[in-house]
Amino acid sequence: MTRDLAIAEVRLTPILVADPPLLNTQGVHQPYTPRLIVEVVTADGITGLGETYGDTKYLELARPLADRLVGHRVSELNALHALDVAVAADRVADAVDVGGLRGVQTADKLRLSVVSAFEVACLDALGKALGLPVHALLGGKVRDSVEYSAYLFYKWAAHPEAAGGEKDDWGAALDPAGVVEQARTFTERHGFTSFKLKGGVFPPDQEVAAVRALAEAFPGHPLRLDPNGAWSVETSVRVARELADVLEYLEDPALGTRAMAEVAARTDVPLATNMCVTTFGEIPEAFAEGAVQVVLSDHHYWGGLRNTQHLAALCAAFGVGVSMHSNTHLGISLAAMTHVASTVPNLRHACDSHYPWQSEDVLTERLVFDGGRVTVGDAPGLGIALDRDALERLHRRWLDDDGTLRDRDDAAAMRVAEPGWATPATPRW
Amino acid sequence: MTRDLAIAEVRLTPILVADPPLLNTQGVHQPYTPRLIVEVVTADGITGLGETYGDTKYLELARPLADRLVGHRVSELNALHALDVAVAADRVADAVDVGGLRGVQTADKLRLSVVSAFEVACLDALGKALGLPVHALLGGKVRDSVEYSAYLFYKWAAHPEAAGGEKDDWGAALDPAGVVEQARTFTERHGFTSFKLKGGVFPPDQEVAAVRALAEAFPGHPLRLDPNGAWSVETSVRVARELADVLEYLEDPALGTRAMAEVAARTDVPLATNMCVTTFGEIPEAFAEGAVQVVLSDHHYWGGLRNTQHLAALCAAFGVGVSMHSNTHLGISLAAMTHVASTVPNLRHACDSHYPWQSEDVLTERLVFDGGRVTVGDAPGLGIALDRDALERLHRRWLDDDGTLRDRDDAAAMRVAEPGWATPATPRW
Repeated sequence: MTRDLAIAEVRLTPILVADPPLLNTQGVHQPYTPRLIVEVVTADGITGLGETYGDTKYLELARPLADRLVGHRVSELNALHALDVAVAADRVADAVDVGGLRGVQTADKLRLSVVSAFEVACLDALGKALGLPVHALLGGKVRDSVEYSAYLFYKWAAHPEAAGGEKDDWGAALDPAGVVEQARTFTERHGFTSFKLKGGVFPPDQEVAAVRALAEAFPGHPLRLDPNGAWSVETSVRVARELADVLEYLEDPALGTRAMAEVAARTDVPLATNMCVTTFGEIPEAFAEGAVQVVLSDHHYWGGLRNTQHLAALCAAFGVGVSMHSNTHLGISLAAMTHVASTVPNLRHACDSHYPWQSEDVLTERLVFDGGRVTVGDAPGLGIALDRDALERLHRRWLDDDGTLRDRDDAAAMRVAEPGWATPATPRW
Repeated sequence: MTRDLAIAEVRLTPILVADPPLLNTQGVHQPYTPRLIVEVVTADGITGLGETYGDTKYLELARPLADRLVGHRVSELNALHALDVAVAADRVADAVDVGGLRGVQTADKLRLSVVSAFEVACLDALGKALGLPVHALLGGKVRDSVEYSAYLFYKWAAHPEAAGGEKDDWGAALDPAGVVEQARTFTERHGFTSFKLKGGVFPPDQEVAAVRALAEAFPGHPLRLDPNGAWSVETSVRVARELADVLEYLEDPALGTRAMAEVAARTDVPLATNMCVTTFGEIPEAFAEGAVQVVLSDHHYWGGLRNTQHLAALCAAFGVGVSMHSNTHLGISLAAMTHVASTVPNLRHACDSHYPWQSEDVLTERLVFDGGRVTVGDAPGLGIALDRDALERLHRRWLDDDGTLRDRDDAAAMRVAEPGWATPATPRW
């Protein structure tokens, strides 16, 4: 062994990251979103970076897991999953995590979401120690760049004054014309050629009109609509039929495997999900029922980059498509997504990424979308470097918060503008 | 990058390996079995070892694939599967490969069986270049030793005089007492505590009696019986019921997913397979029908160690067990099996290995079973070294062969003793 790969220290830094007022069916993004930055430091002083959700329940689990990690080697990735720390029952009591639209919460999924950040940090450190890019540790890239789609959101021009937050230069998008304008800005700034609209915000006909407007403005380009399970089966089927000629896929129109299967049986439009299939345990029923045609892997949910590869192989075996989901994230996770996506042979859809919405990052250099694609680097590890000043600044914001923003709550953010707002019952339409 | 990982040369050496007269439902092992030894040499002069089937159709495919490999890096494992070489249609025309009981033959499976040897050789070379054991390249071991089962065969004391071949000191095993004696020899020599009998040789009642005799001689030890699909559904169900109290699982009692599913529906004895599920494409139907409860992965069939990990993850998702199958193999493949098996969390059955039957090897040091287990080494790569004199000797035997032994044919070997022998129709009983 040329290097001592033992983990000497694990640093956990919760931060709050500026987030624009992006709307979804449960409310609106808060002005700042919690994320957790993980640094794994080897005995040789090599540091690997990872990133995951930063809500309190993730932090609570991350701390004991980090303690258990010390003394292991950064190459011991399978052992990560055996780190045994109990998950408090009240942290997974809610059937659906309303904060993050992250699908059903279970103790395993919560654990995997934390483990994923450690796995990515270990891979980054291992790659640096060996002089190999992370993709090489995953069997090597099969493409030199990874395509992402423009992630369009209905949004306000600014957060309500009472909510505070940062300004952004995207303007409002609250109707078809606004959505098309936002899409044009995406193409101008990043060259995206594939578009996804976060729906479930307005009555379905308005969202159908927005997708139609996109189809007219960008003829032939892949389009997707994702109402986060806000619709009934009937509404889902109706929208699928109305948009059948322009949709690449419809994402989570209805909530749950059973409803998705009913929709799938009545339309030829492929259904994608990051809600009814978010763990390996949910796959057998969903695949048996034909509920989903594309699984959107989120390497955080699924427990890391190697589990994402397992998922992709599983999907290939069952003739189900695979792509990647995104929640609000920074450059560490985008780099991780790009490395793993570059290794998946059966990736045939552009991946999702919120990254263009994040004006802040903890890296010395932001990752760049060129023609909607991120280049798969060959630098050791993830090929990124931490900006400690930026990390400290965002951590300071977390420290200064009185607790209201440390757990993402889109409904609470909505109530600042609409005091009577409650998370809508499902199906909403 | 500290090392030049580019592949400068790939050496392919077909060999013939001494094989005892082991009986199965299709005939008897020939005195010598063809294997292919693969050496991948990096620009830095590091050599990695791989091993696979050596029959002509594998060799024919290995040569062009080896040519394509030069210039790639040993870390480019995903790209291996994209090496594009046509498989001659007549090489996969037979529905079942009668020589090796290797399940249904397809172009993809033939290609994967060859690619697997290149993948293992690349991993060995990569590990040596980086100073890491192969298991660390697979995410790290989760156990320090891997358990194997004693692979019991009905056998003759010696090959027919006309067939030639090497002597062995195992004696004959043609009835329950002989099988028990063979099992005792296995425990004395290697410490195995789990036993598998290759069946389909004698009428089922005789094999049931042999398993009963094993259960009496080794009370409480895991027992398996594998007739290689020789039985009807009715016979399979009857045997399963008669041996339900002593079988860990019944392996491929009947041929094909449909028949296996019928058997599975009528017994609580778990069914294992290395015949009806040998590729990812065969999984959906088999799992949907509940045809198998344990998939016996053969890393040769499945395309290598990383595919074996994908398979294990897939099995875990579906609540199906996983273990490892073996055909006649040498120490390179045993080392490869041991490394990958050490990384699979859901491996809960002892793996199969023919290795104790192989008196010859191409390694400077044979791998050792201690208490039926092989220690998972931490030396770089596979932790083995090639004995060039031994390789040359076994290659010379292949060169000197007139072609009759270059393709394994158990029925042909049987005809030396029984001139009228034909591969039995299925089901045989």
